[in-house]
Amino acid sequence: MASDFRLKEQLPELTDQIVATYTKVGAIHHLGHCALPNYDVIISCIDDLKDILFPGYRRREGLHIGNVTYHVGDLIDGLHDKLTTQIARALRQDDRVTGRKSEDCDYEAKGQAMAIAFLHRIPELRTILATDARAAFDGDPACRSIDEVVFCYPGLEAITSHRIAHELRRLGVPFIPRMMSEWAHKQTGIDIHPGATIGESFFIDHGTGVVIGETCEIGHHVKIYQGVTLGALSFATDGDGNLVRGHKRHPTIEDYVVIYANATILGGKTVVGHHSVIGSSVWLTHSVVPHTTVTMEKPKLRIRAEIPDELKPELNYQI
Amino acid sequence: MASDFRLKEQLPELTDQIVATYTKVGAIHHLGHCALPNYDVIISCIDDLKDILFPGYRRREGLHIGNVTYHVGDLIDGLHDKLTTQIARALRQDDRVTGRKSEDCDYEAKGQAMAIAFLHRIPELRTILATDARAAFDGDPACRSIDEVVFCYPGLEAITSHRIAHELRRLGVPFIPRMMSEWAHKQTGIDIHPGATIGESFFIDHGTGVVIGETCEIGHHVKIYQGVTLGALSFATDGDGNLVRGHKRHPTIEDYVVIYANATILGGKTVVGHHSVIGSSVWLTHSVVPHTTVTMEKPKLRIRAEIPDELKPELNYQI
Amino acid sequence: MASDFRLKEQLPELTDQIVATYTKVGAIHHLGHCALPNYDVIISCIDDLKDILFPGYRRREGLHIGNVTYHVGDLIDGLHDKLTTQIARALRQDDRVTGRKSEDCDYEAKGQAMAIAFLHRIPELRTILATDARAAFDGDPACRSIDEVVFCYPGLEAITSHRIAHELRRLGVPFIPRMMSEWAHKQTGIDIHPGATIGESFFIDHGTGVVIGETCEIGHHVKIYQGVTLGALSFATDGDGNLVRGHKRHPTIEDYVVIYANATILGGKTVVGHHSVIGSSVWLTHSVVPHTTVTMEKPKLRIRAEIPDELKPELNYQI
Amino acid sequence: MASDFRLKEQLPELTDQIVATYTKVGAIHHLGHCALPNYDVIISCIDDLKDILFPGYRRREGLHIGNVTYHVGDLIDGLHDKLTTQIARALRQDDRVTGRKSEDCDYEAKGQAMAIAFLHRIPELRTILATDARAAFDGDPACRSIDEVVFCYPGLEAITSHRIAHELRRLGVPFIPRMMSEWAHKQTGIDIHPGATIGESFFIDHGTGVVIGETCEIGHHVKIYQGVTLGALSFATDGDGNLVRGHKRHPTIEDYVVIYANATILGGKTVVGHHSVIGSSVWLTHSVVPHTTVTMEKPKLRIRAEIPDELKPELNYQI
Amino acid sequence: MASDFRLKEQLPELTDQIVATYTKVGAIHHLGHCALPNYDVIISCIDDLKDILFPGYRRREGLHIGNVTYHVGDLIDGLHDKLTTQIARALRQDDRVTGRKSEDCDYEAKGQAMAIAFLHRIPELRTILATDARAAFDGDPACRSIDEVVFCYPGLEAITSHRIAHELRRLGVPFIPRMMSEWAHKQTGIDIHPGATIGESFFIDHGTGVVIGETCEIGHHVKIYQGVTLGALSFATDGDGNLVRGHKRHPTIEDYVVIYANATILGGKTVVGHHSVIGSSVWLTHSVVPHTTVTMEKPKLRIRAEIPDELKPELNYQI
Amino acid sequence: MASDFRLKEQLPELTDQIVATYTKVGAIHHLGHCALPNYDVIISCIDDLKDILFPGYRRREGLHIGNVTYHVGDLIDGLHDKLTTQIARALRQDDRVTGRKSEDCDYEAKGQAMAIAFLHRIPELRTILATDARAAFDGDPACRSIDEVVFCYPGLEAITSHRIAHELRRLGVPFIPRMMSEWAHKQTGIDIHPGATIGESFFIDHGTGVVIGETCEIGHHVKIYQGVTLGALSFATDGDGNLVRGHKRHPTIEDYVVIYANATILGGKTVVGHHSVIGSSVWLTHSVVPHTTVTMEKPKLRIRAEIPDELKPELNYQI
Repeated sequence: MASDFRLKEQLPELTDQIVATYTKVGAIHHLGHCALPNYDVIISCIDDLKDILFPGYRRREGLHIGNVTYHVGDLIDGLHDKLTTQIARALRQDDRVTGRKSEDCDYEAKGQAMAIAFLHRIPELRTILATDARAAFDGDPACRSIDEVVFCYPGLEAITSHRIAHELRRLGVPFIPRMMSEWAHKQTGIDIHPGATIGESFFIDHGTGVVIGETCEIGHHVKIYQGVTLGALSFATDGDGNLVRGHKRHPTIEDYVVIYANATILGGKTVVGHHSVIGSSVWLTHSVVPHTTVTMEKPKLRIRAEIPDELKPELNYQI
Repeated sequence: MASDFRLKEQLPELTDQIVATYTKVGAIHHLGHCALPNYDVIISCIDDLKDILFPGYRRREGLHIGNVTYHVGDLIDGLHDKLTTQIARALRQDDRVTGRKSEDCDYEAKGQAMAIAFLHRIPELRTILATDARAAFDGDPACRSIDEVVFCYPGLEAITSHRIAHELRRLGVPFIPRMMSEWAHKQTGIDIHPGATIGESFFIDHGTGVVIGETCEIGHHVKIYQGVTLGALSFATDGDGNLVRGHKRHPTIEDYVVIYANATILGGKTVVGHHSVIGSSVWLTHSVVPHTTVTMEKPKLRIRAEIPDELKPELNYQI
Repeated sequence: MASDFRLKEQLPELTDQIVATYTKVGAIHHLGHCALPNYDVIISCIDDLKDILFPGYRRREGLHIGNVTYHVGDLIDGLHDKLTTQIARALRQDDRVTGRKSEDCDYEAKGQAMAIAFLHRIPELRTILATDARAAFDGDPACRSIDEVVFCYPGLEAITSHRIAHELRRLGVPFIPRMMSEWAHKQTGIDIHPGATIGESFFIDHGTGVVIGETCEIGHHVKIYQGVTLGALSFATDGDGNLVRGHKRHPTIEDYVVIYANATILGGKTVVGHHSVIGSSVWLTHSVVPHTTVTMEKPKLRIRAEIPDELKPELNYQI
Repeated sequence: MASDFRLKEQLPELTDQIVATYTKVGAIHHLGHCALPNYDVIISCIDDLKDILFPGYRRREGLHIGNVTYHVGDLIDGLHDKLTTQIARALRQDDRVTGRKSEDCDYEAKGQAMAIAFLHRIPELRTILATDARAAFDGDPACRSIDEVVFCYPGLEAITSHRIAHELRRLGVPFIPRMMSEWAHKQTGIDIHPGATIGESFFIDHGTGVVIGETCEIGHHVKIYQGVTLGALSFATDGDGNLVRGHKRHPTIEDYVVIYANATILGGKTVVGHHSVIGSSVWLTHSVVPHTTVTMEKPKLRIRAEIPDELKPELNYQI
Repeated sequence: MASDFRLKEQLPELTDQIVATYTKVGAIHHLGHCALPNYDVIISCIDDLKDILFPGYRRREGLHIGNVTYHVGDLIDGLHDKLTTQIARALRQDDRVTGRKSEDCDYEAKGQAMAIAFLHRIPELRTILATDARAAFDGDPACRSIDEVVFCYPGLEAITSHRIAHELRRLGVPFIPRMMSEWAHKQTGIDIHPGATIGESFFIDHGTGVVIGETCEIGHHVKIYQGVTLGALSFATDGDGNLVRGHKRHPTIEDYVVIYANATILGGKTVVGHHSVIGSSVWLTHSVVPHTTVTMEKPKLRIRAEIPDELKPELNYQI
Repeated sequence: MASDFRLKEQLPELTDQIVATYTKVGAIHHLGHCALPNYDVIISCIDDLKDILFPGYRRREGLHIGNVTYHVGDLIDGLHDKLTTQIARALRQDDRVTGRKSEDCDYEAKGQAMAIAFLHRIPELRTILATDARAAFDGDPACRSIDEVVFCYPGLEAITSHRIAHELRRLGVPFIPRMMSEWAHKQTGIDIHPGATIGESFFIDHGTGVVIGETCEIGHHVKIYQGVTLGALSFATDGDGNLVRGHKRHPTIEDYVVIYANATILGGKTVVGHHSVIGSSVWLTHSVVPHTTVTMEKPKLRIRAEIPDELKPELNYQI
C-alpha cells in the first residue's frame, strides 16, 4: 500500500479534538450513564413476536401443531427475559431524562411486570391481527390468499409492529415503542406513531409514505392507501414559545372509512364520519358527516397538443 | 438480575393460551402443512441473479472475462437447485389454497421445468436491463456514468427485480414473484406489481412512493418520477359482493411518456398516448391522445405577507 | 429430490450464452478493470462514523468518558485505512470513466490526503449535527428527549449521512458520496443528493418520499415534512440533444422556512424567502419574498352525502 | 495490486486439467451421486444432544425447570427432522458403496424409524452419563464439583459423543457414528471407535492420545489415563491378502480396572480381569486374572552425573 | 419428504420423559440457579488478551505504535466488563456448590476487584511471555524467527493460556481458570492444570499429549517435549474413602531441566535437580540430584530378519 | 450492574503501562511493519484446496461432473488472488527478518509466480492423495469405504495439509507452510513439519501425538500409528553455542515400513530399511537393515495378585 504512515501521525491529535467535542457539544452522546435499550435486541423481540403471532411463515420451517407449543414456549420465555431487561433500561433512562429518581431494583421489577402484562396481550393481538389480514385479502383484488398477505404485505407488517408498540406504550413503557415504530417505518415506509389508536380490520395498501400521527383515532374496517397523511394542522406553544406536547393534534377517522392515495387529512378536531370515502389527493382540514364522499373537484388541467418548450428537453429520446 | 422467578411461573399457562388461538383463530398461521417458499432463499436468488446480470459490481470483487464463466456457471447451477425447490413449494401451496390436487413428484418436475425455462430468459433480461441503465444515464443530469446507475440507482434495482418477478409470473409460478416484488419495495420504496407489463428503456428516478398496479401496460422509453401512482379507479364486485379479481384495472402508458413526481393516473381504460408529458402532481382519470402535455392549471395559491396565527407556532425559532 | 439430472445438462450451454452477453451487451458489467469501491465497506464507514458522531447509542454499549477515547481512536484509525483504499478506488475508476490518465501510486496518496482531510471535518460535523438534533426536538411535540431523536428519527439519520457525503463530495471524492446517499435513501425513504447545500438546525419529519436535488441551497433552521420535493423544472440540452449536467436546476430555500407535507417546489431560479411557510401539497414554481405564507387556495372539494356508484365496491365491508 | 493479469490466463487450462483428474483419479471425489451426510448438520446434532443431555451449561443461558420443556421439545423436534434426513442419506450411500439396491422412499422411512428409536434412548443415556460425570468427580482430586466435570472435562465430552455414536451404530446407522467419533477425537484427542462397548461410570482423565478400538469391551467403573492404547495385535487377511474386517481384535477390560498413562494393551483375546491395575507405560499383550496389579519392572535407567556430549547442545542456556 | 408425520406424534411424550430425568437424575443439569460463566465469553477474553499480549499477529491488521493504544485501551475496557461479570458468576456458583452464603452485590464488587487486579498483571505477563517465546526460538533449530513462534507454536499458545489462568487462580477466581486451561488443551493437546507453577523461559515443543498436574513446580529455562507426563503417583483418601484434595501430588522440576518426549515423571516428592536431562520415554518416580542425566538403559529389542507371522498381514502391500 | 465506575478510572493508566511494554519488551509484537500473512485467509486457502482435491465431500453439496468445472474454476481463481497476496506478505516479512532488501513490487510478482507454480501442482497432488486414501482403506479393518476415509480420517487430513505445505515450502514460500502445518496439528494432533519428505500411499492411523521432524525422509507405502515420534537425537551448536539450523537431524524410513503406536525413532543417521516393522513403544536410535522386525523384548512386568498400598486409593469404587 502506498499510503504514507507519517501522515497518520496526526490521527491521535484529531482523536483528542473529537473527544473534546463530547464535553463541549452535549446532548448527542450517551456517555457515562446507564445503558440504553439495545436496538438489536428490540428488533429481535419484534421478530420473535412475529414468529408467535404468525407461526410457520418465516424463520422456522417445519412447525406443526404437535411441536408449536415448544417453539412458542421457548420464545415466550426468552421474550420475558429480553423485555424485562430492555424495559428496565428504558424506565431508568426515562427517569434520568425527566429528573425523577427511583430505586435501581424497582426498574427490574417494574420491567418484569410490564413485560408479563404485555405478553398476556398476545392472544388478543392474534385475534385482531387476523381481522387485519382478512381485511387485506378482502380489499385487494390482486391478492390470491391470506398466506400472501402474511408473507408479502407491508401494510400487515406495519400494523403488526404498531399493535405491539401501542400495547407497550399503553402499559407505560417509554422509548421502546418509538424504536419499534421506526423499525417498521424503515422496513415499510409506513410511519405510524405508537400513540395512534386503531380499530380492527385495518388495511393499508402499498403504504409507502403513509404517516399516522400520535393522537389519531381510527375506527374499525378503515382502509388507507399509499401516501396518506393523517397529520396536525399546527402546534400550540406555551407562554415561553415551547411546544405544548401531548394534546390531540391529529384527526379522528370513524368506522368503514376509505382514504385513497396521497390524501391529506389534518387537525385534531377533524372527524371523518363513518362510511365516508376520501378521494385520492384530497386535502381536508375540516370534519365531514357520516356517509360522505369527498373528491377533488374535477381538477383543472392544462392539456395542450404541443409540448411546451420547458418540457422538451425531456423528450430527447425521440430523435 | 432482580426479576422474580416466581412470576415467570405463569408463562407456561400463557403459552397454552397462545397456542389455543392457533386452532381458534385460523388463517394467519401455517402449521402442519407442506413447506412454504423460504423468504431468505428467495432473496438469495435475487442476489445471485443480480451478480449474473451485473457482474463485478457487488458481492464478488476481482471478476474478469477469464474467470467470470466459472463464477456465473456456479451461480446458475445453484440457482437451478434453489429455484426448483422453491417453485415446487409454491406450486404445492397454491394447489392447497385453491383446492386442486396433484401428485407430489409432479411439483418437483414442474418446478424444475419452470426454473430452467426462467434461467433461459437471462440473456434477454440482460439485454433489456442494459436499455434501462442507459435510460437512467440519459435521463438524469446528475448522473456521471453507467457504473453509478448500476451501483446507486434504486430505480434500476426495482426494475431489475420486477423483470425477474414478471418472467416468473409469466411462466405460471405462484407466490414467489410477489415475494420478490415486496422485497424490492422494501429496499427502494417502489412498489411494482409483478403482473405489470413494462417495455424497454424504462427509468424511475428517486422512486420512493411509486406504485404501479397489476394490470398496467407501459411502453418503451417511459420515465417516471417519485410518488407516481398508476392505480385503479374502483373495484368491481360480483353478485355476492366479492371482489372480481384479475380484470384490467390500471392504466396504459404508451411509448416515450414522461410522468413527473406525485402524478396520479387511475383506471383500466385510461390510456396516455405516446410522447405525452404528465406534469407533477397531476390527477388524471381519463385518456389523452398522443403528444399531449397535461399540467396542473396554474394552481391558485394564497400568498400572504403576514403569517397566519395557526402557522406561527412553527416559527418559534425566530426568537 | 425428484428433479431430473439430465435436464441440468443444458446449464453449461446456457452459462456460455449468458457470458457471451457480457461482450455483446456492454456497460452493465464491470469485468477486467480495477476494483470499484466496495459497498459493504462504505456502509461500514458510515456506521463507524455514526459511532463517532453519536457515541453510546448503537453498536457499542458501556461507553463512558474514560474509555471513549480508545474507542474513537480505534475507529478513526480504521476509517483512515478504509477510506484511503476506497477513495483511491473511486478516483481510479473516475479517471477510467472520464478517460483521464494518472500514475497508480497517485491514487493511494490522493485517497489518503482526502481521507485525512475528511476526518478533520468530524468535530465540525458533530457541532452542526447537534443543532439538527435540537431542531428535531424543538420541532416535534411528540418527541420526549434528544435521545429519542438520535435513536429513532429517520430525518436525523438522513441528514447525518448527507453531511458526511456532502463533505466527501466537497473534497472531490467521486462515486462514494452517491453510494452513501443511496444507502440513506434505502434506510429512510429520504433522497438527498450529496451536492445539496444545507444549513444548520435542519429538520425533516417523517421524511418518506422527500427528494432534495443536487443543486439545492437550503439555509439555517429549515423544517421539511414527508413527501416534499425540491426538484428541477426542466433539463437543458446542448446542441446535440445531450443533457447539460451541473448547472443550478433546484430551488433555494432561505433561513427559517417551513415546508409542509407533499409540497413541491421546482426550478433553479425559485427562491423561497426567509421566514416563509409553504403549506401542505402546495405546488410552487416561482420565487416568494421573505415572510410569505403560501397555502393552497381553499381546495374545491366535491362533497356528497351519497356515495357514488364507482366507489361503492369498496364498501362491501358494511354487509 | 501489482499482480500480472496476463499470467492468470493459464488458470482456465489448469482448471480443465484438475477436472480431468476427477475422471482419471477416481474414488476421492463425490460427484454425480446422491448427497452424503452433511458434516455441519451432524455436528449441530451433537450440540443439540449435549444441550438436552446436560441442560443449562452451554449454548442457552437462563434455563430453569419451568421453561426447559419448551427448549428440549423444540430441540427434539428439530433433531427428528435433521437425523431423519441425515440417516436416510447415510443409508442410501451405504447401499451405493455395497452395491445393494433399495427404493428411494424406503431410505426416508428407515431414517425416520432409526431417528425415533435413537431419540427414545436419550433418557437412558442421561442416566448412564450421570454415572460417568460422578466417576470423574470421584476419581480426580483436582476436581471441585460436578459442574466442573460437565463444563471442562474432555473425558466426559468424549464419552458423551461415544455413547451417542454407539447407540446410532447399534441401530444400524452407517457412516454417521464415525463422523461423530472423529469430531470428538478432533475436539479432545480421544479416539474411541463407535463400535466399542463401554459400561457405566467410565472416566478418562486428560485423555489426549487415548485410542480405544472397534471391538473393545469395557466393563463398569473403569478408569483410563492419557495416552492409553487398547489396540489390535495384528490383522488377519483372507486368501487374497485382503483384511478380514469385523472380528474381535481389541482387548476386554473388566469392571473396576484402572489403566495408567501411556499403557498399551493389545489383542482380541487379551482380558484384563476385574479390579486389576495396569501401571503407567506398561505394554501388555496377554490376559491377567482379576485383582492383578501390573507395573513395569523397576525400569533400568542410566543415571550419570555428567551430561553426555550428545545431550549437551541442549544446555546452551547455562552459559 | 417421505417422513411420516404421525410418527412424530410420540415426540411430546418422549420430551416429557426426558424432562422427567432432570429431576430424577440430578447433578448433570444446571436448571433454576444463577448463571454459570459463559464459555464463549471466556474464550473471547482469552482472544482479547492474546491481542494485548502479542499485538499485531492475529485478529487486527495494521496496528502500529501510533494506534495501538486505542486498540489496547478499548480491549482493556471491554475485558474489565466481561471479566467482572464472569468472575461474579463464578464466585456465586462456587458459593452455591460449597454451601457458603454471600450478599448478591458482593459478587459483582469482588468480581470487579479481581478483574482489575488481574489486568494489572498484564505488563508482567508480557515480560515473562517474551522469555518463553525466546526460549522456543533458541530451543528449536527448525524455527526461523520469533514471529514464527508467536504465530505457529502450540507450546506458546498453551503457556500463554496457562499464565493467564494461573494468575486468575492465584487471585482466588474459581472455575474460570479450568475453563481456560481446557480450551488451551482442546487447541493444542497440551493439558496444564492452572494450579501448576512455572518459571520463565519455558518451552514445550510439539506438545501433543503433555500433561502437567495441579501441584507441579517448574523452574526457569525448562524445556519439555511432546507426550511428557508430570503426574501423581497415587491419591490419598480420608477415613471415609474420599479423595484428599489439594496436597502436593506432582513433581518438582528445577531450573534448566530438559525432559524429552514421552517421559513420565510421577510423585509429589519427586524432585528433578537443576541442569538435569531426562531422556525420551524414561519412567521416573524418584528424585535425582542436579546435573543428572537419566536415559533408558539400552533398551533390549528383539531384532529379527524374518518377519513374524502375526505381523505379516500388515505387509500385504508387498505383493 | 453493581460494579464501581470509579475503579475503572485506573484503566487508562494501566493501558499506558501495557503499551509501554511494547517498546521495552520487543520481539513479541508486530507493530509498524508490513502486514503478516493472515491466518484466517491461510485457513480458507486450505479449505478451498480440500474442496478442489476432494470435491463433493464437505462445504458444497450437489456437485456433479456437469457443474464441478465452474466450482473448481471459481475456487482456483480466488486461490490465485489469495495466495498471491499472502505469499507476497510472507516474502516481505522474511526479508525484514533476515535483513534482506527487495523492491516492493517484486513481492507481488514473486508471490504470483509462486502461487501459479503451486496451483499447477494440484493434479499431481490429487494423484498422490488418492494413493494415501487407498492406503488407509487397505490398512484399517474397521474402515468400510474410501468415502469414510475422506470424510473421517484425521490421518488423511494431516497428510493433505502436509502435501500442500510441503509443495509451498519446496517453492521457497516462507512462513505459510508452517502456519498450515500448525493448523493441521491443531485439528488432528498430528505434527508433521513441512520440510519432511513423504512418499505415496502414506497412512497414519488415529494419529494423535505423532511428530515427524523437519528433515525426515519417508518412502512409499509407509504406515504409522498414534504417538510415533520421528525425532532428533540432539542438536548441534556452532562455536557461539547457537543452534545449527537446517542439517539432517531426523531419521529415514524406507518403503513398506510399518511403525506401531508410540514407537520413537531418533537421529539423522538412523535408517529403517524397507519392509521393516517397528513394534509398539520401541525406542530406536540406530539403523536397521531391510526386512527387519524390531519389537520390545518381552517386557519385564511385575504382576502381583495383591494390589500395592500406593495404588489402593484408586480403588475406592469397590466399596
